[in-house]
Amino acid sequence: MTDVVALLRAALGESVDTTDAALQAVRADKSGHAEAGTPLAVVHAASVADVQATLRIATATRTPVVPRGAGTGLAGGANTGTGAIALSLRRMDRILEVSPDDLLAVVEPGILNADLNDALAAHDLWWAPDPASRAISTVGGNIATGAGGLLCAKYGVVRDAVLGLDVVLADGRLLHLGHRSVKGVTGLDLTSLLIGSEGVLGVVVGATLKLRRLVPGEVHTIVGMFADVRAAAAASAAVTAAGIQPAIMELMDATSLAAVHRLLALPVPDGAAQLTIQTDGPAAAAEAAAIAVVLRAHGGHVEVSADREEGERLLAVRRSMHAAMASLGTTLIEDVAVPRSRLAEMFDEIARVEREHGVVIPTVAHAGDGNLHPNFIFDGPDVPEEIWDAADDVFRAALRLGGTLTGEHGIGVLKRRWLADELGPDQWELQRRIAAVFDPLGILNPGKVFAP
Amino acid sequence: MTDVVALLRAALGESVDTTDAALQAVRADKSGHAEAGTPLAVVHAASVADVQATLRIATATRTPVVPRGAGTGLAGGANTGTGAIALSLRRMDRILEVSPDDLLAVVEPGILNADLNDALAAHDLWWAPDPASRAISTVGGNIATGAGGLLCAKYGVVRDAVLGLDVVLADGRLLHLGHRSVKGVTGLDLTSLLIGSEGVLGVVVGATLKLRRLVPGEVHTIVGMFADVRAAAAASAAVTAAGIQPAIMELMDATSLAAVHRLLALPVPDGAAQLTIQTDGPAAAAEAAAIAVVLRAHGGHVEVSADREEGERLLAVRRSMHAAMASLGTTLIEDVAVPRSRLAEMFDEIARVEREHGVVIPTVAHAGDGNLHPNFIFDGPDVPEEIWDAADDVFRAALRLGGTLTGEHGIGVLKRRWLADELGPDQWELQRRIAAVFDPLGILNPGKVFAP
Repeated sequence: MTDVVALLRAALGESVDTTDAALQAVRADKSGHAEAGTPLAVVHAASVADVQATLRIATATRTPVVPRGAGTGLAGGANTGTGAIALSLRRMDRILEVSPDDLLAVVEPGILNADLNDALAAHDLWWAPDPASRAISTVGGNIATGAGGLLCAKYGVVRDAVLGLDVVLADGRLLHLGHRSVKGVTGLDLTSLLIGSEGVLGVVVGATLKLRRLVPGEVHTIVGMFADVRAAAAASAAVTAAGIQPAIMELMDATSLAAVHRLLALPVPDGAAQLTIQTDGPAAAAEAAAIAVVLRAHGGHVEVSADREEGERLLAVRRSMHAAMASLGTTLIEDVAVPRSRLAEMFDEIARVEREHGVVIPTVAHAGDGNLHPNFIFDGPDVPEEIWDAADDVFRAALRLGGTLTGEHGIGVLKRRWLADELGPDQWELQRRIAAVFDPLGILNPGKVFAP
Repeated sequence: MTDVVALLRAALGESVDTTDAALQAVRADKSGHAEAGTPLAVVHAASVADVQATLRIATATRTPVVPRGAGTGLAGGANTGTGAIALSLRRMDRILEVSPDDLLAVVEPGILNADLNDALAAHDLWWAPDPASRAISTVGGNIATGAGGLLCAKYGVVRDAVLGLDVVLADGRLLHLGHRSVKGVTGLDLTSLLIGSEGVLGVVVGATLKLRRLVPGEVHTIVGMFADVRAAAAASAAVTAAGIQPAIMELMDATSLAAVHRLLALPVPDGAAQLTIQTDGPAAAAEAAAIAVVLRAHGGHVEVSADREEGERLLAVRRSMHAAMASLGTTLIEDVAVPRSRLAEMFDEIARVEREHGVVIPTVAHAGDGNLHPNFIFDGPDVPEEIWDAADDVFRAALRLGGTLTGEHGIGVLKRRWLADELGPDQWELQRRIAAVFDPLGILNPGKVFAP
């Protein structure tokens, strides 16, 4: 038997980490779920050449490789198990170029989203994708999962904000995909295909990002408190239907709200569901006023602030959701998305699942884009089968409403058994065969996304 | 030998057209270039079932199929030659759904872009892609080529405006790709992969489009006349660098301007290069004033209008470019794109190619996104080799400046011999193998894009 670790050490020296702490750490991500067994090694790549060397050895020895950023995924996509190499891109964190004139930046994949945006702010620029994990997640991970966030309805998702990618294939070859110009239709759009591919097609080692200028003007924050979640959902749909495009529109249900208020030691909320909305740009004040009218017409108690810091304080309740859920037990954070107009119906379905399965499912939603995060809480490390049954019921309801299994977290391991339900068997098979063109030996993140 | 036409007639009856006029018409597109020989038949599909029946017969008989919209392409991608079936989607032109609340529409592929937008305007909505051909090109053709247009820097390209696609594969199977929600990352993004795939992966038979609300407020139009094209290009780059985002920013060089003024019987222009810029939205007036300052600082003679109709009149000069070129001879309309900041350098390169090759290359540019259309004029139906030599020089210059062969027209037949130069041999081969997963028999638009 080939000693893969010896080969890696010969090629990569100190970058190969086989300490128990490192091997245990890469078994899991922020979903709380871990792969079984012990990985072979963690390679801390510092360069494209390191990534290529790792993949050449993996190909020669038929060893599975799991690409990994900061490990903040919520679907188990970067979890590494028995016999596999975890290939960490976290140390490749340089900004190689910022071009304000061309509104682009070229970066390595391991830079944290927030660190990139701090650096861009000095140029009056920003990269719009803003997953809730932005302070701790990498740009490469955002690209590999096709991450979303709070601002997507107005400012787009990751695939709207990437011009080109440098990718190392399973056999170690380096490809340059995409372009530096705003337009470009030369051949097939492999850049878009790589976005959200969760490490099964190739390893992203560089990205040319499409930037925006910082939005000038004020930010207004509107908080609306409602008697029930259905009224809040209807109010959020009415905002969109009124032709207003907020930057952020977040919805929290009663259980979520209560848990966060307990965690932050805030007074008991004076309602059962909350919308937190922000407007920006030249029309921020006028839009905030119009939104307040819509929310009040839907029975909301409304508070408006034109102060940026007060706005951040109001949003802090929403941003503390993940911590509040973690304080209750182990969490399965789900991620269905439906067309915006079906949001209230989706909340009805979640209430039905709560009743029929006898579970409590605290739920928050990016109401502006119809993306809901139902949180299933349980004890112990593994998702009990009755929780999966309830989640399954939620997934099927989302599909019935014209929605999708996952708006922004990806399939990973946690949702792979539902993938064919959404894609249909023909598309599932076609996608699997496309992946095989990139990775004929099946060494890149095997068992993820397309598990049999 | 199987009688393919007899099989088609048995399945599709009157939809199968073998009149000489129809067969001759599908040999060419608006590039002016035609395939050799005579096609077998034109199928005027009226339904998804018609498309499936055609492709099943094509698969059974190994007959090439060329999908076709309105035939307004500029790269020969829909040209149909000897022994092939032209599969026209033009009659599938229904709008199946408009959802203002979800900002989406579901359409058949054969509807004209302008007809769709006329219908959407009644709902205060629009589909942003606006190729110059919008009055005569189909939505399906816009998707198949990944079309661009005048508004892309501000409002995006086709791939930013499509949520999902229904696609018939070469063997007749129907797939539903993508989703109806704003977010969705279930599996690989085949919707994006199909956009711009020029008929080599599958036939688009339906599209779920992402809409925008009509932009409220005024439209301001700014015309700047400059002493030379380099000054105009520098001024346009300065507008972007100043942080202003116009809706439209078009640049015409001296030869283009003179030709259009002759065609429209306008007075001789009082300069050698013109920028025509439009601003819209709540900040339109302020942006127009700021742009006027930038243009004057770059030596421009500037005229500003806040009148929508006057703005259309000023833009008419730019919109008459194609007709003005056609009046001079046969045209090879090229389509390189470079990062915005390299626009002036690209004009220098075109001037160099004019000098070194002894040709005149009237050029217009979507200056806001760095997309240039150099027009090579010649006599007779076929591009002479010396024109290809000059075009080759222009392509290589664009690639050297970090640009691309084609910003919005596609590869088709006219640029296939340069495709590997931009992609590199590894990516070219990978793309060809992905296409083979969709179409293992190679019957879909053979000889296009990936010609050997």
